[in-house]
Amino acid sequence: MFRAAELGQTVSKKEYKARAPDIRRQLLEAQVLLSRTADFSVMIDFAGVDGAGKGSTVNELHGWMDTRLIKTNAYGPQSEADRQQPKFWRFWRDLPAAGHMALNLRARYSTPFLDRAYGRINDLEYLAALKRIQTFERMLADDGMLIIKFWMHLSREEQQQRLESLQADPETTWRVSDRDWEHWKMYDQFIATAERTITETNTDFAPWHIIEGTDTNHRILTVAEIILEALKSRLKVHGHQPTPELLVDPEAIDAEDPIPEPPDRHVTVFSVLDMKTSLAKPDYRSQLIAQQRRIHLLNREAIEQNRSLVLVFEGPDAGGKGGAIRRILPTLDARNYRVLQYGAPTDEEASRHYLWRFWRHLQEAGHLTIFDRSWYGRVLVERVEGFASDREWKRAYAEINDFEDQLVEHGTIFVKFWLHITPDEQLKRFKARKRTPLKSWKLTVEDWRNRGKWYEYETAAHEMVKNTSTHVSPWEMIPANDKNFARIRVLETFGDYLEAALQGN
Amino acid sequence: MFRAAELGQTVSKKEYKARAPDIRRQLLEAQVLLSRTADFSVMIDFAGVDGAGKGSTVNELHGWMDTRLIKTNAYGPQSEADRQQPKFWRFWRDLPAAGHMALNLRARYSTPFLDRAYGRINDLEYLAALKRIQTFERMLADDGMLIIKFWMHLSREEQQQRLESLQADPETTWRVSDRDWEHWKMYDQFIATAERTITETNTDFAPWHIIEGTDTNHRILTVAEIILEALKSRLKVHGHQPTPELLVDPEAIDAEDPIPEPPDRHVTVFSVLDMKTSLAKPDYRSQLIAQQRRIHLLNREAIEQNRSLVLVFEGPDAGGKGGAIRRILPTLDARNYRVLQYGAPTDEEASRHYLWRFWRHLQEAGHLTIFDRSWYGRVLVERVEGFASDREWKRAYAEINDFEDQLVEHGTIFVKFWLHITPDEQLKRFKARKRTPLKSWKLTVEDWRNRGKWYEYETAAHEMVKNTSTHVSPWEMIPANDKNFARIRVLETFGDYLEAALQGN
Repeated sequence: MFRAAELGQTVSKKEYKARAPDIRRQLLEAQVLLSRTADFSVMIDFAGVDGAGKGSTVNELHGWMDTRLIKTNAYGPQSEADRQQPKFWRFWRDLPAAGHMALNLRARYSTPFLDRAYGRINDLEYLAALKRIQTFERMLADDGMLIIKFWMHLSREEQQQRLESLQADPETTWRVSDRDWEHWKMYDQFIATAERTITETNTDFAPWHIIEGTDTNHRILTVAEIILEALKSRLKVHGHQPTPELLVDPEAIDAEDPIPEPPDRHVTVFSVLDMKTSLAKPDYRSQLIAQQRRIHLLNREAIEQNRSLVLVFEGPDAGGKGGAIRRILPTLDARNYRVLQYGAPTDEEASRHYLWRFWRHLQEAGHLTIFDRSWYGRVLVERVEGFASDREWKRAYAEINDFEDQLVEHGTIFVKFWLHITPDEQLKRFKARKRTPLKSWKLTVEDWRNRGKWYEYETAAHEMVKNTSTHVSPWEMIPANDKNFARIRVLETFGDYLEAALQGN
Repeated sequence: MFRAAELGQTVSKKEYKARAPDIRRQLLEAQVLLSRTADFSVMIDFAGVDGAGKGSTVNELHGWMDTRLIKTNAYGPQSEADRQQPKFWRFWRDLPAAGHMALNLRARYSTPFLDRAYGRINDLEYLAALKRIQTFERMLADDGMLIIKFWMHLSREEQQQRLESLQADPETTWRVSDRDWEHWKMYDQFIATAERTITETNTDFAPWHIIEGTDTNHRILTVAEIILEALKSRLKVHGHQPTPELLVDPEAIDAEDPIPEPPDRHVTVFSVLDMKTSLAKPDYRSQLIAQQRRIHLLNREAIEQNRSLVLVFEGPDAGGKGGAIRRILPTLDARNYRVLQYGAPTDEEASRHYLWRFWRHLQEAGHLTIFDRSWYGRVLVERVEGFASDREWKRAYAEINDFEDQLVEHGTIFVKFWLHITPDEQLKRFKARKRTPLKSWKLTVEDWRNRGKWYEYETAAHEMVKNTSTHVSPWEMIPANDKNFARIRVLETFGDYLEAALQGN
């Protein structure tokens, strides 16, 4: 069964560079379409041989797609709470909502698979376990969910090489455990069990795809193409076609710029920022690598210390929040972070205090949560657009300070960034977005309209900083007209916070 | 401060019987109004001296109000998951939605209070903790929440007597621990800390009410009246007046009975039930006491074994589900059970598989969850009313069987009841409801309309039983034209399941 995945397929760097951008763009478009129409959800499982790139493929997919619409679920041993419930409870708990995607690692197949490979259960018991999984998958697929399962394969020799090379590198040696070598010795049992698993659960509604895990470029391209095809054909079945109108408003941006004159004596905390700071590309490149390496190591230490991490990104539209976040992600493992963006509250959220929907998404210890916009919406967009009453947004400063105090007091490593740009720079970026297919999905009519309220937003932001930049959680204000400079400054600052917090321990 | 709560106030049985029904009716009405308008939520805290009746007051309130709109939160030591979050996380997690009520035991005051009484924190640290609590309460009150706090008081001598009498009774002796006596010895420190607590946190937006805990009748009446007054004045502020139209449709029921002729050859699994069985009142009384006692003991054993319990109640409107459930509750502790009723799905629920909203409410080990109507709605009301497509409700039988298999396999004690009545009996009960103020809120226009589809519902129920009465989770069909008979049969059956399951261990 796995012979076809031992062909030594590779994709050269050149070919990769030629094919990847288009797939990426189409994936993003499909994802936007999925989230806007929101009539089905997607669940993608990664299973297979240790070292065949399950985790790194998941990480790469986060870089390719809009990570705010993805949740990675990595299942370890059952927690205290899990053990009090039927086995599938945690899989039900994590079901993605329509419009969203789940990427699963070590999910429902993992425990029965290992039990069978180790001989702790017999073949009949294993079949019963697979039957239960299949029932689960059928139920979800019947309900409209798109289910895709990847089996990442390596030959016995390749696995050995992979484990050895990971072990040889001081920076990755921690990833190889005795258990991995034990499993390698059991290679034949594992392959036999894998065959059985795939044979029994390879269905039309939840198909397996066997992926040759050796070559990184080949692996990610193949996986991405399979996901793209599945998404496209499903969206077609439902009659959704990616229409350009849905993604951009091509007319608006050429109409008259809605930005008003600045008010008299408009001086804010941002006036003192040196908006001309920049960083040359070669410096950026070398510093990027150094800073990412630093954060990678510090973050591993933070996970080992079981610290929680929370980052907040705020700032004008097109200020570069997403780009700065994407420079952090490669240093992390998708199993340990989540990027959140909040739209309109759900009805469960709307029927409670507005901070509830942020509290509910705080993750367990050892995880990083990145808020791409946050609770500060209360004193920014909700204030400016009149969604919150005067009394509501005015009392929010103290409420927010109290919330953040609690995070910090608990030991959470907490940083909040304001990425600042000038109105001219925003206009330049809006125009550039329009021209770049990969970015066009990011420009909405609303962004354009908000530009007309630039100074109202800036005043609200000024008062926000005044009222919520406290000793325990100061605002890190970054001049972001130059993307390179801003990205490096964000990484540096995050690294400094990490260092200070970890040394404190 | 507590002198006023040591006056030895009592309420005679006669006075109690004269006052209680009216308060109860008004509480129910206010609660219905609250849930229908749903623009604020209610949080009620019970704190105070051990043995002063905190738990039993909470239990009694469940009996007085619609328990499906109440959630009791009893906070013990932090769990593994709690410890990974800021201290207030679990209080945020449990915030009631607008229209709902939370009854809290050992909530946010408990840990700092004990820390202070034991001298583990100093006065300044205690003040800081109280300030945090006050910030929390102000935030919620500003957001519209109605907060009521009860401090249940006993004098030193009364507490001693209470603990001694609990200890002397073999059935309640387990409720008194060494810790309780230790606290009793620290009575003076506790009272001093209590005074401090109340002085510092008795605010207009979250007031404390000191309740004399000695006399049960006095205690529950006083608590109920305070809740009622607070609810009424809040509902008045919001301009909601209990209008009879909202609660009943007085015309509908005197119009023509919408029930059709039975179809030809209408034979169902219910045809074999002996609908004439009944139980005389004296027999009912004695059996009720015996069965409740039996369940009380078995349930305690189940909690000790950390078993989960799930009961499902289905059957025609006015079949006596609520009454049967209310006969079970006095045997339990509100800390360990929850009665759930499902209305329209929230948008988070609607965007996932329909079973998700039942999975998400499964409780941790040692808890009983009672579903007053359940996932069977899929093959009953959703089928008959066309909310589910043919394919959807047809495949639901297998999905439901699989779900229940998982519960039973996990070790959950699971019983599902069908309370059956005849159409004539239903009509009689509808008419009686109209006449009884305490029950009038239970009759809706929809109930009346559903009556016109009696045989469609009966056919759907027949097929439901055929397809989902399995060896592991059979339907317990109870002839319920006689309420006494049905209630005893439910208790008996539940007791038998408990006995069998606990002996199995």
